[in-house]
Amino acid sequence: LNSSLRPIGVFDSGVGGLTVLKALRERLPHESFVYLGDTARLPYGTKSRESIERYALQAAALLMRQDIKCLVVACNTASAVALPILQSKFSALPVIGVVEPGAEAGCSASRSGRIAVIGTEGTIRGKAYESAISRIRHDAVVTAIACPLFVALAEEGLIDGPIVEAIAHRYLDSAFSTPSATRPDTLVLGCTHFPVLAHALRQVVGDVVIVDSAHTTAVALELQLQRREILYQGALAGRGTMRLLATDGCERFARVGSIFLGSAISSSDIELVDLGV
Amino acid sequence: LNSSLRPIGVFDSGVGGLTVLKALRERLPHESFVYLGDTARLPYGTKSRESIERYALQAAALLMRQDIKCLVVACNTASAVALPILQSKFSALPVIGVVEPGAEAGCSASRSGRIAVIGTEGTIRGKAYESAISRIRHDAVVTAIACPLFVALAEEGLIDGPIVEAIAHRYLDSAFSTPSATRPDTLVLGCTHFPVLAHALRQVVGDVVIVDSAHTTAVALELQLQRREILYQGALAGRGTMRLLATDGCERFARVGSIFLGSAISSSDIELVDLGV
Repeated sequence: LNSSLRPIGVFDSGVGGLTVLKALRERLPHESFVYLGDTARLPYGTKSRESIERYALQAAALLMRQDIKCLVVACNTASAVALPILQSKFSALPVIGVVEPGAEAGCSASRSGRIAVIGTEGTIRGKAYESAISRIRHDAVVTAIACPLFVALAEEGLIDGPIVEAIAHRYLDSAFSTPSATRPDTLVLGCTHFPVLAHALRQVVGDVVIVDSAHTTAVALELQLQRREILYQGALAGRGTMRLLATDGCERFARVGSIFLGSAISSSDIELVDLGV
Repeated sequence: LNSSLRPIGVFDSGVGGLTVLKALRERLPHESFVYLGDTARLPYGTKSRESIERYALQAAALLMRQDIKCLVVACNTASAVALPILQSKFSALPVIGVVEPGAEAGCSASRSGRIAVIGTEGTIRGKAYESAISRIRHDAVVTAIACPLFVALAEEGLIDGPIVEAIAHRYLDSAFSTPSATRPDTLVLGCTHFPVLAHALRQVVGDVVIVDSAHTTAVALELQLQRREILYQGALAGRGTMRLLATDGCERFARVGSIFLGSAISSSDIELVDLGV
């Protein structure tokens, strides 16, 4: 198969990565995508480094068998923890995470260099965002905050209103209820679940730029495809295809995934796959 | 080994089952226990029946290799979904779940027969509590409510205060903010995570009997051990031993597990085991 026509693999621990898939399809509408959500073992955010690496390698291997031309790790936790091992094991094709693009988005948006990052326990523990931001902007002052309840809220579709705001205050007030001279001016959403909570977060953090990595990941993907000369080169009429694979629970994937993809998914659209777990 | 001296296996999806282990050890202080938390794949509550059955069989097989004399399935979701297959595959020894004891506790506590049960998505979906309660008490009227956010709250140690109460109101008001003639008089906590939230739940449901299955499971276990004549028959000085096994993340197991066991756990007390996943 002409390399440019092969699909792009997108891997996530579950359904949150559909926010990234949405952005990728918007920027690269002619490309075809195969998305794998490891719903049998989600969430990754509370798991150890060793488990996350093992799970990511198994998921990536399955996508490789779909003859993908490029792998996007849409899960922040997997990007933060397992990107080096994925890039080393699958060095024949580009492997793109969401942490570096998220860090770039944060650095571009911030005027003061005071940047807050929120994510899961696993993402924050590894300090991947701090490292990525410091590499891009040496003077940056990064405040990283683990917000595990946001994942459960987003998965339940409880994305706005007083409960969400009260939980956001609990996590964010120590960073944002400070004098303006030390307050972050930018908030990076370091978890694919969090963009759906953006409105509620805005009520809590006030006049701060809120960025996520979905858009900058799409830009990074396009750049990689151009560099490797594997950007889609077929007929430009019509959109590329989208396949959705899951390791468990197609019914729940469809119901919860619709929140993140921003459009309805039917459980019959999802292919159940076996990672041997 | 003298059968009565062999340990009792306790299996849970993670750390919530430590609330059951605590009750078992209180009632049967001379017995030894091996507890396995499948932290690599938790939570079970959002997973499909097929995955929960597979995970439970793997976990039970590992405990069998520890030469246990009896298996307690401390996880409500696994009990609700996988107890029949566990009892059929491991028919040589007693396999006890927490749903039947929880149903018994609810039926004993209720005067009116109007019983509410709260649990995870997986537990409620399977209607195991409705079936168990109806078998015990034909006139019972059961209201079953899935409360997935409670799991995340309990794991975070956020067990009291306005956020917990607001979420509890969201789940429970439709059942409990009703005229007293139709209101349940009993609330069964159908998830091992929920007993730590009991104080906050009390603020929301008011004058209702709140029961969990930990105590009645201990009674059921003692009865089974007596019937099979494998109740501990050794020297009665001193307590039995307790081993803690986990499939992932001993550090997090220790930190979060201490909330549920009600006493401090050190990560060095936990043995990491491999279910081949």
